[in-house]
Amino acid sequence: MPPSPALTAPTQFLEAGGIRFAYRRFGTPAATPLVFTQHFMGNLDNFDPAIADALAPGREIILFDNAGVGRSTGTAPDTIDGMAADAVRFIDGLGLTAIDLLGHSMGGETAQLITLNRPELVRRLVLVGTGPRGGFSIARQPATTAPLFGKRDELGDDMWLPILFTPSKESQAAGRAFVARIQARTEDRDTPVSAETIAAYRAAANGWGSAPPDDFAYLSHIAQPTLVVNGSNDVVIPTINSYHLYQHLPQAELWLLPDSGHGAHFQYPALFARQVAGFLDR
Amino acid sequence: MPPSPALTAPTQFLEAGGIRFAYRRFGTPAATPLVFTQHFMGNLDNFDPAIADALAPGREIILFDNAGVGRSTGTAPDTIDGMAADAVRFIDGLGLTAIDLLGHSMGGETAQLITLNRPELVRRLVLVGTGPRGGFSIARQPATTAPLFGKRDELGDDMWLPILFTPSKESQAAGRAFVARIQARTEDRDTPVSAETIAAYRAAANGWGSAPPDDFAYLSHIAQPTLVVNGSNDVVIPTINSYHLYQHLPQAELWLLPDSGHGAHFQYPALFARQVAGFLDR
Repeated sequence: MPPSPALTAPTQFLEAGGIRFAYRRFGTPAATPLVFTQHFMGNLDNFDPAIADALAPGREIILFDNAGVGRSTGTAPDTIDGMAADAVRFIDGLGLTAIDLLGHSMGGETAQLITLNRPELVRRLVLVGTGPRGGFSIARQPATTAPLFGKRDELGDDMWLPILFTPSKESQAAGRAFVARIQARTEDRDTPVSAETIAAYRAAANGWGSAPPDDFAYLSHIAQPTLVVNGSNDVVIPTINSYHLYQHLPQAELWLLPDSGHGAHFQYPALFARQVAGFLDR
Repeated sequence: MPPSPALTAPTQFLEAGGIRFAYRRFGTPAATPLVFTQHFMGNLDNFDPAIADALAPGREIILFDNAGVGRSTGTAPDTIDGMAADAVRFIDGLGLTAIDLLGHSMGGETAQLITLNRPELVRRLVLVGTGPRGGFSIARQPATTAPLFGKRDELGDDMWLPILFTPSKESQAAGRAFVARIQARTEDRDTPVSAETIAAYRAAANGWGSAPPDDFAYLSHIAQPTLVVNGSNDVVIPTINSYHLYQHLPQAELWLLPDSGHGAHFQYPALFARQVAGFLDR
């Protein structure tokens, strides 16, 4: 097995805007660095090491805890706007002036606003398992979804199996492999997301999904080439939201995977990394 | 410029089921051969040479005129079922027992039925700019689309510019490059599709689009891995039909391209060929 920078990169810390951000940075300083923004209830250990390792030979990978998450200090805001502002503090604090950005779920909402607010900073955008503001994404969730996020104490990381994967045998097997990957780091692990941050983020998700409809007009101002990715049956931010993103972003392509859910990229990590590398290096 | 087998492969003829089929066959006999099924009003010269040439090093490419089209004899049927039956006569006539199949538009409808009726024959399926049976695809066309197909005498191959490409400057420029490619063969060109065949095919398209809705249940019986491709604004078989195909095929992935229309693959031929090769060779 080749060495895994994702599993061994030390956690570093950066002071910016009064916040001490925890982050990991590895890979090859060559092309534009790729910054990942994380999903609800995820910390540094929830970024899939298989994806980061597959992309790292072609670029630097930067994973971080946003304010109030994991080992980062500060208070988690209860709006996506607030998360985007904190993320920009971190990116500016690193001195980066051009990045590619890959956001999953709530991290994809944050990534949209980072790009909208700081267009000169973002070169290319990858949005995974996410949706537009005002897409009624939360309202459209099956009623069975919300309770799944309350099972962390009971199930640990197995909580993610019905959230990120479909019920099929193949998808669940891929899910168990994913869970093993996010548990593989043995030292310097991150701190679980706190109850306070979970509550603030829940409010942010509801605010995003129920924002007044504007026919997704804000998306017309995100001119960056964007790759939108999802699974066929996303029970968190239903798959049709990815289609809406694609239809309203001026330079988007859409790639949807078979028999997969909110964590389609975790189900097909090698395939996903190849598609993303092809998109970023085009 | 490297030699182009697509532009120089001689037209061959095969007798099968009482029909003399015109076809061209080239490439590397290595992996499963890739058979293309053609769109409405297209003959052998309307297959994009750039796509065929890009895929030919990895497999054999087989382009053919279905019954009643171009230099093939026989009567064009007025149903997609009839076209699929004729296509199977041709494929069986070649002695092929396993193929990959790539169908565009009406050719994608034919490809669905070939796969449904002869599942053991088709290994992998690529459906471009097409839709499901009963998708009301024709009914959903903008009113401006149908008259565009009546301009062949007036416009020649430029007829395709508003049908296959978007109004943007970039898409139209790509369209003109495509028109130059399909005109580049100087010898052994095919015969234009006849008025009789156009009339029969028009009836077939209407029958397909207005078939009684069955919630696309037939698609659940197409188990082959399938790549569904389209542009963002298909005015012939509106893009949402590609999403429906993807959602109802059990093993499909969906890839939709930016600022493009019914001929998205003709707009991005190199990118399309790479994606298709990656899918077929996976």
